[in-house]
Amino acid sequence: MSQKNWQDKCAVFGIWNHPAAAEISYLALYAQQHRGQEGAGIVSLHENTHCIHRGAGLVGEVFSKHQLQKLRGSAAIGHTRYSTSGKKIKHNIQPLTADISIGPLAIAHNGNIVNFPDLKQELTQQGSIFYGTSDTECIIHLLAMHLKKNISLPNALELSLTKLIGAYSLVLLTKNSLIAARDPMGFRPLALGKFTNNAWALASETCAFDLIGAKYVREIEPGEIWIANAKEVRSIFLPQKAKNYCVFEHVYFARPDSQVFGRHVYQSRKAMGHILATESHVPADMVLSVPDSGTASALGYSEKSGIPFEMGIIRNHYVGRTFIHPSDTIRNFHIKIKLSPQKTLLKDKKVIVVDDSLVRGNTSRSIVALLKKAGAKEVHFRVSSPPVTGSCFYGVDTPETKQLIAAQKNTEEIKSYLQADSLAFLSHKGLMQAVGENVSSNPASNNFCSACFTGKYPTPT
Amino acid sequence: MSQKNWQDKCAVFGIWNHPAAAEISYLALYAQQHRGQEGAGIVSLHENTHCIHRGAGLVGEVFSKHQLQKLRGSAAIGHTRYSTSGKKIKHNIQPLTADISIGPLAIAHNGNIVNFPDLKQELTQQGSIFYGTSDTECIIHLLAMHLKKNISLPNALELSLTKLIGAYSLVLLTKNSLIAARDPMGFRPLALGKFTNNAWALASETCAFDLIGAKYVREIEPGEIWIANAKEVRSIFLPQKAKNYCVFEHVYFARPDSQVFGRHVYQSRKAMGHILATESHVPADMVLSVPDSGTASALGYSEKSGIPFEMGIIRNHYVGRTFIHPSDTIRNFHIKIKLSPQKTLLKDKKVIVVDDSLVRGNTSRSIVALLKKAGAKEVHFRVSSPPVTGSCFYGVDTPETKQLIAAQKNTEEIKSYLQADSLAFLSHKGLMQAVGENVSSNPASNNFCSACFTGKYPTPT
Amino acid sequence: MSQKNWQDKCAVFGIWNHPAAAEISYLALYAQQHRGQEGAGIVSLHENTHCIHRGAGLVGEVFSKHQLQKLRGSAAIGHTRYSTSGKKIKHNIQPLTADISIGPLAIAHNGNIVNFPDLKQELTQQGSIFYGTSDTECIIHLLAMHLKKNISLPNALELSLTKLIGAYSLVLLTKNSLIAARDPMGFRPLALGKFTNNAWALASETCAFDLIGAKYVREIEPGEIWIANAKEVRSIFLPQKAKNYCVFEHVYFARPDSQVFGRHVYQSRKAMGHILATESHVPADMVLSVPDSGTASALGYSEKSGIPFEMGIIRNHYVGRTFIHPSDTIRNFHIKIKLSPQKTLLKDKKVIVVDDSLVRGNTSRSIVALLKKAGAKEVHFRVSSPPVTGSCFYGVDTPETKQLIAAQKNTEEIKSYLQADSLAFLSHKGLMQAVGENVSSNPASNNFCSACFTGKYPTPT
Amino acid sequence: MSQKNWQDKCAVFGIWNHPAAAEISYLALYAQQHRGQEGAGIVSLHENTHCIHRGAGLVGEVFSKHQLQKLRGSAAIGHTRYSTSGKKIKHNIQPLTADISIGPLAIAHNGNIVNFPDLKQELTQQGSIFYGTSDTECIIHLLAMHLKKNISLPNALELSLTKLIGAYSLVLLTKNSLIAARDPMGFRPLALGKFTNNAWALASETCAFDLIGAKYVREIEPGEIWIANAKEVRSIFLPQKAKNYCVFEHVYFARPDSQVFGRHVYQSRKAMGHILATESHVPADMVLSVPDSGTASALGYSEKSGIPFEMGIIRNHYVGRTFIHPSDTIRNFHIKIKLSPQKTLLKDKKVIVVDDSLVRGNTSRSIVALLKKAGAKEVHFRVSSPPVTGSCFYGVDTPETKQLIAAQKNTEEIKSYLQADSLAFLSHKGLMQAVGENVSSNPASNNFCSACFTGKYPTPT
Repeated sequence: MSQKNWQDKCAVFGIWNHPAAAEISYLALYAQQHRGQEGAGIVSLHENTHCIHRGAGLVGEVFSKHQLQKLRGSAAIGHTRYSTSGKKIKHNIQPLTADISIGPLAIAHNGNIVNFPDLKQELTQQGSIFYGTSDTECIIHLLAMHLKKNISLPNALELSLTKLIGAYSLVLLTKNSLIAARDPMGFRPLALGKFTNNAWALASETCAFDLIGAKYVREIEPGEIWIANAKEVRSIFLPQKAKNYCVFEHVYFARPDSQVFGRHVYQSRKAMGHILATESHVPADMVLSVPDSGTASALGYSEKSGIPFEMGIIRNHYVGRTFIHPSDTIRNFHIKIKLSPQKTLLKDKKVIVVDDSLVRGNTSRSIVALLKKAGAKEVHFRVSSPPVTGSCFYGVDTPETKQLIAAQKNTEEIKSYLQADSLAFLSHKGLMQAVGENVSSNPASNNFCSACFTGKYPTPT
Repeated sequence: MSQKNWQDKCAVFGIWNHPAAAEISYLALYAQQHRGQEGAGIVSLHENTHCIHRGAGLVGEVFSKHQLQKLRGSAAIGHTRYSTSGKKIKHNIQPLTADISIGPLAIAHNGNIVNFPDLKQELTQQGSIFYGTSDTECIIHLLAMHLKKNISLPNALELSLTKLIGAYSLVLLTKNSLIAARDPMGFRPLALGKFTNNAWALASETCAFDLIGAKYVREIEPGEIWIANAKEVRSIFLPQKAKNYCVFEHVYFARPDSQVFGRHVYQSRKAMGHILATESHVPADMVLSVPDSGTASALGYSEKSGIPFEMGIIRNHYVGRTFIHPSDTIRNFHIKIKLSPQKTLLKDKKVIVVDDSLVRGNTSRSIVALLKKAGAKEVHFRVSSPPVTGSCFYGVDTPETKQLIAAQKNTEEIKSYLQADSLAFLSHKGLMQAVGENVSSNPASNNFCSACFTGKYPTPT
Repeated sequence: MSQKNWQDKCAVFGIWNHPAAAEISYLALYAQQHRGQEGAGIVSLHENTHCIHRGAGLVGEVFSKHQLQKLRGSAAIGHTRYSTSGKKIKHNIQPLTADISIGPLAIAHNGNIVNFPDLKQELTQQGSIFYGTSDTECIIHLLAMHLKKNISLPNALELSLTKLIGAYSLVLLTKNSLIAARDPMGFRPLALGKFTNNAWALASETCAFDLIGAKYVREIEPGEIWIANAKEVRSIFLPQKAKNYCVFEHVYFARPDSQVFGRHVYQSRKAMGHILATESHVPADMVLSVPDSGTASALGYSEKSGIPFEMGIIRNHYVGRTFIHPSDTIRNFHIKIKLSPQKTLLKDKKVIVVDDSLVRGNTSRSIVALLKKAGAKEVHFRVSSPPVTGSCFYGVDTPETKQLIAAQKNTEEIKSYLQADSLAFLSHKGLMQAVGENVSSNPASNNFCSACFTGKYPTPT
Repeated sequence: MSQKNWQDKCAVFGIWNHPAAAEISYLALYAQQHRGQEGAGIVSLHENTHCIHRGAGLVGEVFSKHQLQKLRGSAAIGHTRYSTSGKKIKHNIQPLTADISIGPLAIAHNGNIVNFPDLKQELTQQGSIFYGTSDTECIIHLLAMHLKKNISLPNALELSLTKLIGAYSLVLLTKNSLIAARDPMGFRPLALGKFTNNAWALASETCAFDLIGAKYVREIEPGEIWIANAKEVRSIFLPQKAKNYCVFEHVYFARPDSQVFGRHVYQSRKAMGHILATESHVPADMVLSVPDSGTASALGYSEKSGIPFEMGIIRNHYVGRTFIHPSDTIRNFHIKIKLSPQKTLLKDKKVIVVDDSLVRGNTSRSIVALLKKAGAKEVHFRVSSPPVTGSCFYGVDTPETKQLIAAQKNTEEIKSYLQADSLAFLSHKGLMQAVGENVSSNPASNNFCSACFTGKYPTPT
């Protein structure tokens, strides 16, 4: 799937009690770069004050060696950001920082606060001022408001979070503690890791732990507020709600080598391919993937169907952000520059091509055209998730509903638009099976939010 | 005087009802670049929303043509900033902007709030959050606090400013008005200008009006709050106090072609030279200036004394910020790279060299050494202001008192340190005469703050 | 294989009679970016003069839209360059250009002139001057020397090339013609393509043709000089020699979707995997590849052996050039930052890992360590080419012989060094079979140079 | 005078036997930055090889500390370049470097070779290749050609230079010597300096010696070839010709604190002002200068006439290259952004404004308009050189003749165009007196080229 169609907004990271806190944070953001490429920041804690560096761009561009060395101390939080252009990006690059009554506060947020417009109006009426356009800013204000009443930080946080509707996996840094918090529905992931020397780590995805050498301990629970300071590590809990893990993390967002919501992503994707092959088999000479996001499910499809997997589409990894697009002379150029079909391999062959999801349809249409131009006799398009019919309100950057092809057309019409010889989606039931839900016993009891496929949103929107 | 010794912190600008508001703001900041080179910003008002661009560097570096075009609308405010390094500069580059209960607010500030630490503590106790380290931020909070009580903007501003002790020349932009305000003592300048087509301009210095084609109308009065909106232009006033115009604006900060506090700066400086020649004449072959800041008073000295003015010291205008300093091989290198003495001219001559002020003394000492090395037989150092003995708390970036040579040594000792053949300062009385104060009639009645020369600070510090 | 171990030095491109010559050149260089990332350049021909743009960096960084538009005309040549650091890179970025007696000349070269030191000495003795350190410069001098005797350009080129020993695939642009030339042994590839409208293209790899929409016609023959001008397209030929195509193009350099020396690269790599599985099978739970270069042969190995292929090692595609390496805290960091093993998948499994080649051995050793750390019970390392025992002198950037592990150790010793449970290389005979040589009939007759595996260099070195 | 109207093309520098050769070169180029702002380069000599760094931009931008440290050795040459845009600037940034039969050669050139087109054609016919468009390149070829016949370097240089017609002040660096050479007419300056420790320096202007602490020894003579190596320092001479020092160096190019052609520039300019006042006096209230180039002659005018000098026009020193020009709303904007008139001072006054030269006339016209707008009652324009009627062919970048206002209009017509109340130029005789020529004794015997004023070019053009 094209990166611009459906994009997770961020990754967060936190570390406590490690002598190389900023350096480790840098690496952990780096490992989570796929969750946000527009900006990055790290705030470290040194002798009760915060050292801050943030900037637009990739992690490797934002931080120089010199700047990293200035982020002193043994605790830190970090953030990588995806942001649509045009917004006042500089003030929104996280971690957000502020001085409040208890001293410096830094916060990094993955998710989206659904009732932000109401909260903002309410808060400005009370004299709060907003510097950026980020929903995260209202969390700081709520906290500052509650703290002025001499309430303890954990309790003030509890009271503040209770006001929020929506998705939030948070890490916070104060002048003496690291805090993690996750909304009661648990939309977005947040994992806890540990180093050998009693140092703690928090990350959106466990692939960060693998790089930095931390051991995965467990998920921060939905509704959990986890606090580490010099004296103790403890948790308090918000009132429990039904779980609503974002299933798209397993479909597309997360790296295949991560564990997300306690489950191995690659395993889920292989299973999607297995079930897809079972549900919608078609005879063919080979299985291809749309690289790289479709590869795991394509391998699963191949394994189950017995049809060999081939690298029929090669991805060009040098596609950079500064690339100049040619006027109009080359058909399907936007996709040809990234994906190259193997003509010799494809000539006169029937092929099954597997992609992870289908959002707008234009990229898929170009891929079908490319394969046919390269000589493929038949192109059977298989999608390892159900048709996307609705936008997300829980921290994913999505097109408007009217741009979602499956909100406008049925499968047969989409097939015609793609000019594919056949088209099939993974069923919703199949998807739930693939992520380990025992759907047969009780269809309603599953722990995942799949509102973008079903339209059943777990909160008011 | 070396630019780094004593530096005005900023210039402000505002414009109302002009079709090219952002472009004019850019030019006006450019004309006031000498008041701050570390950062610049413009906020324009377009259909009730603010368009914002700020950045570190010179005005010409911060704004591209493209960015300027995005600043739409017919009203705008702007700011150039001088800032010591190490501070969190990005969040402090002005105009500061925030969303408050009445909508977007932008503020640009020249001056310094003396009671900022107290105000910040008080405000955070009430739940306010501070994003940067700038004293200007507390003005926004005070305003937001008062506005929540349904008080009109002018009145809320009046109540807010009453809480402040110190120096502030402010321009503010809301969703429908441009506002100027100046503290009751009037430390820093703020002038009002007008275009032919009923458009208004506000600027720290009138040289901005000359470039943009606005006509100088008058000063914004000390204690005046001036408001322009679609319906009216009107003023309200804070309670009156004794005037304390910063005399250093006439000594060094302002451009010689500006009018400041209603008086032509070049005229003041020529007069300083005249009086200096009267007070401390010495026979010599020529009068030199330390370019460019000492040139006007040196011309005045030459005129009054009849000793010819010569360009005996040439300034290298290509000195850039990226210059690499050599290890240590060249004596007095830091001054030689900027100033070059005319050896042929100076050989065996008695010279009078005029500088605007004497702060640390190290630069002056190097200049004397340079002139003697170039062959001058006698070097008589003349300073067109009194000895600086105290720091400023009203918006000027100054060295600590212990670094001020006149706080440590008397004139004879300074002469020895400089290795000059004679040394004289302009008297305080002479300085007051030069800026037009009728000191003979009532010495106490003058309108200028000269605390850095006298130690008599007009507010608690 | 790590990109820095063994690197093709360049790609070339040429185009004749196409209205968008520079834009097409840009895209063709882009498609061949994998052959050189250090610099790029395009020279176009417009009304008998050359328009030139060259720079250091990736193709997308070197050219802006504006610069591309200034490269006018309907013919052009281009080049991407790989260069070891420390050389005077700016003067060496190609195409090299010069004014000679027949007007402007531009030249782009893939290969290496073995007798360059002798030629340079000879030429400077005759009054030639060398601006850079590139061997390509002597080709221009030879040409200029021969042209001064009123010899036609094709004949002067013929005489010049006869003086060269080594590898060269050249494209040249004069004021009225496009020329391609390839050394008689044909070390490096050079392909001819055609557009529908009688426009011609030349490229190192056919993947360039696929992107730009040209049709592959044939290889430029070893020893062929191909000339296109307004009147005609014709070829002349240097005296024939035994062919010596670089087999490493099929092993590693070329993109799998290219045809090189008339053979599909992906097909060769799949065949290498097939033969490797036949030659050195071992029971295991899964086949892994070192992504991305080992993937095609790993798929071939899996197909032949029936052992399933898994994405057991994930490649991080965000690794950028500005990345900051951590001090020393993380073991095997250099490889962990690029490659991430799937712990859940690998736990307690016997795995076969396939890489394309084994040069220094340090990367492979890290990969084995990574897999074992991730839980693999056995790691069987398979290499789809023979042990590399010698450097290349024909246009490949290689480590010194003493750094080649197979020049120092036998297979058993390498296995111990890698700490692998078994190690096997593809046999030389197997490699020749994989690239389509009928080795059984006459082992000596093959058309490939495999000197880096066999030590049998086809020229004096 | 506006910098873009009439621009010296370069400065050169050389140093021999100094432990900090590259650092000193950097500073010396810096001191001569006014002679060329488009590019700079330094080549140092370290153990018989050259270390090279060149780039586009100001000296302070081209060199970082790191790059300067890589320029090792105790001898070096340097160059700053002025270049019209659109040329292939990168290959033309000097020092040019090449490998020739005697090893590495570097050359830096101030001047212009008039017969370059003929020489280039002749050389390419003999097999020479030209990489750039610079006339300097033919000097290298001539040298390489002569050296191939086993002639000594000084003799080969002698033979080469004899072929040249035009202006050249050269410094060359080989693998073991530093060489200076100046054309027999001596168009452009070149001075010799010495350090205390037997180290030598060469510079276009002596202001470089003042900064680096070298003592001015003498001019390199017209026609002199000066050679320093480990064994000796010696000179040989080309056949003598009539001297033709560029008088514009004293009028405008050189820094006022330099000695040029053995004469102090500031002294010349003061004298121009004296003579101008004598030749064309007019009653007025004050003398102004067009800063900074007209200031020295304005001071001279004031001194002689007794009319006081005032800073009536202030120059804005922050005008940078990235400045965005406003559409068209502000009249005379191009000059207002740089120069600001003192309204209070000028109101109702009769002023004499002195500029160094008058080339196109458009800038002067704007200045007159500016002064009148600022309130001046009468504006008398005085030019401290004669009317410019012809282009320069000896190393100065000049407008075409048809753009020279004095080539099209007489003084009365120019006065009308400027809308000045009177206009006068310095006479040619006065100019010669000002630069120290005894014109009364023998008008024809003077040592200066003033072809741009007289049309009498000393060589074929």
